[in-house]
Amino acid sequence: MGIKPLIVVNFKTYTEGMGENAVKMAKYCEEVSMDSGVNIIAVPQIPDVYRVACSVKIPVYSQHIDGVGAGSFTGHITADCMKSDGASGTLLNHSERRLLLADIESGIRSAKKSGLKAIVCTNNVAVTVAAATFAPEFVAIEPPELIGSGIPVSKADPDIVSGSVKAVKKIAPGVEVLCGAGISKGEDVAAALELGTVGVLLASGVVKAKDPKAALFDLVKSI
Amino acid sequence: MGIKPLIVVNFKTYTEGMGENAVKMAKYCEEVSMDSGVNIIAVPQIPDVYRVACSVKIPVYSQHIDGVGAGSFTGHITADCMKSDGASGTLLNHSERRLLLADIESGIRSAKKSGLKAIVCTNNVAVTVAAATFAPEFVAIEPPELIGSGIPVSKADPDIVSGSVKAVKKIAPGVEVLCGAGISKGEDVAAALELGTVGVLLASGVVKAKDPKAALFDLVKSI
Amino acid sequence: MGIKPLIVVNFKTYTEGMGENAVKMAKYCEEVSMDSGVNIIAVPQIPDVYRVACSVKIPVYSQHIDGVGAGSFTGHITADCMKSDGASGTLLNHSERRLLLADIESGIRSAKKSGLKAIVCTNNVAVTVAAATFAPEFVAIEPPELIGSGIPVSKADPDIVSGSVKAVKKIAPGVEVLCGAGISKGEDVAAALELGTVGVLLASGVVKAKDPKAALFDLVKSI
Amino acid sequence: MGIKPLIVVNFKTYTEGMGENAVKMAKYCEEVSMDSGVNIIAVPQIPDVYRVACSVKIPVYSQHIDGVGAGSFTGHITADCMKSDGASGTLLNHSERRLLLADIESGIRSAKKSGLKAIVCTNNVAVTVAAATFAPEFVAIEPPELIGSGIPVSKADPDIVSGSVKAVKKIAPGVEVLCGAGISKGEDVAAALELGTVGVLLASGVVKAKDPKAALFDLVKSI
Repeated sequence: MGIKPLIVVNFKTYTEGMGENAVKMAKYCEEVSMDSGVNIIAVPQIPDVYRVACSVKIPVYSQHIDGVGAGSFTGHITADCMKSDGASGTLLNHSERRLLLADIESGIRSAKKSGLKAIVCTNNVAVTVAAATFAPEFVAIEPPELIGSGIPVSKADPDIVSGSVKAVKKIAPGVEVLCGAGISKGEDVAAALELGTVGVLLASGVVKAKDPKAALFDLVKSI
Repeated sequence: MGIKPLIVVNFKTYTEGMGENAVKMAKYCEEVSMDSGVNIIAVPQIPDVYRVACSVKIPVYSQHIDGVGAGSFTGHITADCMKSDGASGTLLNHSERRLLLADIESGIRSAKKSGLKAIVCTNNVAVTVAAATFAPEFVAIEPPELIGSGIPVSKADPDIVSGSVKAVKKIAPGVEVLCGAGISKGEDVAAALELGTVGVLLASGVVKAKDPKAALFDLVKSI
Repeated sequence: MGIKPLIVVNFKTYTEGMGENAVKMAKYCEEVSMDSGVNIIAVPQIPDVYRVACSVKIPVYSQHIDGVGAGSFTGHITADCMKSDGASGTLLNHSERRLLLADIESGIRSAKKSGLKAIVCTNNVAVTVAAATFAPEFVAIEPPELIGSGIPVSKADPDIVSGSVKAVKKIAPGVEVLCGAGISKGEDVAAALELGTVGVLLASGVVKAKDPKAALFDLVKSI
Repeated sequence: MGIKPLIVVNFKTYTEGMGENAVKMAKYCEEVSMDSGVNIIAVPQIPDVYRVACSVKIPVYSQHIDGVGAGSFTGHITADCMKSDGASGTLLNHSERRLLLADIESGIRSAKKSGLKAIVCTNNVAVTVAAATFAPEFVAIEPPELIGSGIPVSKADPDIVSGSVKAVKKIAPGVEVLCGAGISKGEDVAAALELGTVGVLLASGVVKAKDPKAALFDLVKSI
């Protein structure tokens, strides 16, 4: 039957997804995932990963890692540490945390070595292709101008999504494409899958929703 | 009787102070602190703060925070989140994680608001004075060229330490001065206190020591 | 008779102030300065400084320098190089080019050594005070939210200007205060001087004006 | 007859290649280029590009550009400005001035639009491939640990050079490969060409040489 769709919920630094709330939000994700059979990944703030990973069975990802290892790197986030604290993957190069080219490469390399999956965020087709050459598990195309806009990328700019899927398939067929920016409803997810992605990355649509659980159920309903 | 000396142990991203090892290292710190009455602060990697803070009674500090609050700041470390995960303070502007001037100011401001103490690391007397104007609890002068050198700043460059103490006293008398770089022995701590600091910041001297607990006992013995 | 008011015109990367246009714009500044007796400083893009400095007699400043010297610093802008290309000063830490605390300190130090004057841009009173401790010739308070807004800081937030003047006078009486953000008219300059500054920093109000020379004459008319 | 070999001389921020010395150094490059028929590109500090480009007929490149255009980008270096000041190309992502992935892409895009050629510096084969997907004119592989070492990359790590050439040919056959790090002699250039590159990038080997002109003649002698 193939890979199940994937919904990645980024808690950003929203109060609604921080500390005790992070655990609660991740439990909503877990409940909807169990209930629907759709893969949902919780991405809490980095200091919350441990307590969240101890509390749920769905995958918990880090919002960022630095491409450095053990040593004199005070204040940096290592793949090894995230792994030992329960993360099973990480975002990299999110539009709110852009990285040097060399650090994306070393970040993906250290993620692989530690057994973390990597989702590299990108802003256009050309950058998506470049990121895909590093063979992360996922690239996530998110046009920055649509993030938080409420206008889903799948409607506002379907070509950037299908263009990314096509270009990645050609250069790195093992890399799956996600899309994000403006996603909040089940129809946005459906449209994203239509365009050839394996899922979506979203944040406020769930975390800032009045009823996050209902928002999650709405997201998965059309799958 | 006045303030007790303070020893700040930075675990950096050393394997010896990561994950389960972070908890173990923090327990050594706790034991020596209890035994000696000297204040010891454990500074594990950011993702380890929660599990360390749950395991020990001594203060646990973050290695870094970003000067941002709740919102669209994926991958950033907020004071509020560190606080809710058990930190009672934070390093800021460590030589391995230098910050923009504006972010040091907003970082200290958000630390205060969240109830975190701040130790701002600096590289020379002029920068120490500038940092002190923000009224953090501590500034820590660490000449970058001596970090990890094995040559204690208190011996190699006592003037930078006493100069910092004097200059800070004049401009911001409520701010305490620490020093770091090359500290590994009890005599280095004693020398640092002689020069007017209230304590030291160190890393490899404890965390990479063959016997970290013995290294800690040696540090406090002359106090 | 005391110091004359100072108007600093930042050409940013506007096309209207680039290449040949930079020379033309600087000549407008020169003409109005000669005519009015008001000091006007032209701040073109860094690659244009040489040709502008060869063409006018008013001071030409760099938009930025890095706090590094001779050596392996490809792509960096040194004070020595700017000086040898005709600059007589530099902006530092502009809101569009924020710097590390340590680099502001070393930048001011290298500017002094090379004989460049420094204007350090800041975003609030606390940061202004910290920057002033480095004793640059000028600090320029510019609330980021007002830059390019058309609402002059002298009207929108007079307290941040007078607060900066007062705080700087106390801690570093030799440092002069400028203000910027939203400045476009003679009355804004007059208001800025009333609040205790020695002048203003502006950009679009002149460079993007239909008639830059007229805009400059309007700025100086009430002085 | 095919493309002539290319020697790119990076003046870094060396005093020997700054200001008036930049013009002199570029004239040496020009003389040796004219005499030998080998293409030599001079890469002075950014503020020196205009005066150097006015003085020589060989191509003059910028050490860096930012991937931004006209607007509110104080202190940034735009492709348009470099072009109007006489540059015909630019380095991007030099190991001493690493860039965000997204900024490399937009930098190359703006270089093309302004008519500048781009040499993107990289640190390993994977990063070289990623950079090559953006279709700059050149990628330049320079293992950071060999820069300034005196040990030529063509000897110390020939596989990284030939591996880059092979991988780039496969993914972006229009992109030429240069190599750098430790290059100082004619035999290093010959070895680089043997490995499939079209030339070399070097700095101290020429600029810090006692006799730069002699060093340049030595570089081209075996071609």
